[in-house]
Amino acid sequence: MAVVKENMYPKKILQYMEGYLVSKTLFAACELGVFDLLQDSQRPLATAQVAQALDSSEDGMDRLLSACAGLELLTTQHTTDGQVLYSNTEMSSMFLTKSSPRSLYHSIDYNSNTMYLCWHYLTNAVREGKNQYERAFGVNSKDLFEAVYRSDEEMVKFMRLMNSIWNICGRDVVTAFDLSPFKSIYDLGGCSGALARQCVQIYPDCTVTIFDLPKVVHMSREHFLSDDRISFHEGDFFKDSLPEADLYILARILHDWTDERNVELLTKIHQSCNPGGGVLLVEALLSEDNSGPLTTQLYSLNMLVQTEGRERKGSEYAALLTKAGFTTVHVHKTGKIYDSILALK
Amino acid sequence: MAVVKENMYPKKILQYMEGYLVSKTLFAACELGVFDLLQDSQRPLATAQVAQALDSSEDGMDRLLSACAGLELLTTQHTTDGQVLYSNTEMSSMFLTKSSPRSLYHSIDYNSNTMYLCWHYLTNAVREGKNQYERAFGVNSKDLFEAVYRSDEEMVKFMRLMNSIWNICGRDVVTAFDLSPFKSIYDLGGCSGALARQCVQIYPDCTVTIFDLPKVVHMSREHFLSDDRISFHEGDFFKDSLPEADLYILARILHDWTDERNVELLTKIHQSCNPGGGVLLVEALLSEDNSGPLTTQLYSLNMLVQTEGRERKGSEYAALLTKAGFTTVHVHKTGKIYDSILALK
Repeated sequence: MAVVKENMYPKKILQYMEGYLVSKTLFAACELGVFDLLQDSQRPLATAQVAQALDSSEDGMDRLLSACAGLELLTTQHTTDGQVLYSNTEMSSMFLTKSSPRSLYHSIDYNSNTMYLCWHYLTNAVREGKNQYERAFGVNSKDLFEAVYRSDEEMVKFMRLMNSIWNICGRDVVTAFDLSPFKSIYDLGGCSGALARQCVQIYPDCTVTIFDLPKVVHMSREHFLSDDRISFHEGDFFKDSLPEADLYILARILHDWTDERNVELLTKIHQSCNPGGGVLLVEALLSEDNSGPLTTQLYSLNMLVQTEGRERKGSEYAALLTKAGFTTVHVHKTGKIYDSILALK
Repeated sequence: MAVVKENMYPKKILQYMEGYLVSKTLFAACELGVFDLLQDSQRPLATAQVAQALDSSEDGMDRLLSACAGLELLTTQHTTDGQVLYSNTEMSSMFLTKSSPRSLYHSIDYNSNTMYLCWHYLTNAVREGKNQYERAFGVNSKDLFEAVYRSDEEMVKFMRLMNSIWNICGRDVVTAFDLSPFKSIYDLGGCSGALARQCVQIYPDCTVTIFDLPKVVHMSREHFLSDDRISFHEGDFFKDSLPEADLYILARILHDWTDERNVELLTKIHQSCNPGGGVLLVEALLSEDNSGPLTTQLYSLNMLVQTEGRERKGSEYAALLTKAGFTTVHVHKTGKIYDSILALK
């Protein structure tokens, strides 16, 4: 039994316990449009003004705004008559408004409305060793992406999530290596094309083809992309044959699947790959001794809750690539969430 | 529109976004009994041993344990044959095992299984300015404690939550003032009696009576309390008359209710209070300029999501007390979550 030490106080544990309160405070402020309103207004606003503009209760908005100030997502100034006026911080304007080119709004939406509910069943996921779409949303998860794309609305949300993260990490992962020697690039599971767009911007001589499921391609064409240098190829990379190319990008694809399926996919890629070509993996890498980064450890639990895969170490990806026939493997850690691995045929 | 500054990286926002992942990782480890097992085993254990003992998947447990290590809730040691062995930290033994006298286990259970679900509807709560029992649990919240105590199981969970927090904050709030002059003490809404127990330990000459709803008193008698110096009084403090006493304790009661109901209750207390007697409020206090503490700002949102009340400033409680007839009001901040206010008749 633990010895009672009166002076010990579990500050860190209490902070972890309120983690979800912090997340939901941020999420609610985004969902209600607080940061967009403050951005548009061009001047600091009082609670009553924000509440009225966003059709919210003044009492609730007052608490939300002061918690956002406590989180340093908003700044406050006090008027001589005792009113508190709120404005965005530079960070909030850049990352939390819908219209910003670096917006995280859609990541937040997906975290708040999909992942948050799935994570309610983390205990079950750990016990059973499998994802929780059935408990959280009542959908069968035998075909993973049938569950993820369980409605058009959910598919668009997921595509926006993908888009959103490359707003902040895309440049780093495609400049981790000089990709200019690769002229024809296939982005397998390239989804809404945010990473493809980064590629054609940085490597003007390349052409990028997004290879994805037909319904994803339709949605992408309609709602996300219009760039001459980016084209589409409809298909299922597990079932259909792959076209020849100099470089295949797999950005956050392998972490969805088991080692077996990944070797199967990488072997197909190796066979289709032009001589001198390669594959670029973009993933969040665990350290070799498994001790971090914390975000990636948490994401690996997320992969448990939401997919059939896991986050892996650089050496684990290298082993999969080697098994599939690739020889030279370069690992580049960016210091942000996502890292890059380049393997050559 | 935000200016794109390539070098800005929203570290803090990303950390807030993963707050709920951190909370649920801690909660799942508690719920699965990880800390209890490591405590009982008296020696470090490998993932396979933990998974087997707790009837969990090895893969899921491996990810959970390494995330707990990343959160510094567990320590690791590496054996010569490459195995990782896990043990509790001192903090985890003391606060996360069920059997520890300072355990937060039941707070965690309530956070994970009740509050987490209510907080999914924070956006609705802010918009509507009211609690979310109906959306989260399908129960009508016209009578607040009928919703909170919607089943015996939920009532016990809530009582354990109350118990649990006084394990870490109880001593500070009852020693904030010298209560030894008060011989007869009524703890209104005293619930499972954890604070009453702190009182009789620190002030051996006093007698404490817990005043609470009949079903709470029955549960408390059966499952929580056996102490000669603590007795019970069944009643509803809004509807029934209050007995005379030297001191009334209201610990985390006023934050559940509106100003109007609080003045009504405090006025009744003032009338029943013996001359020279008083009332001790135990609440998390907001700073006078509303700028913090962050935990209390978040708790005030929690009061929105879960009750009819709010967290308040010291001056706001003083105003309620003065309205009810109390004169001298002393505010004492403990530096931990809960503070004390003593008001005299």
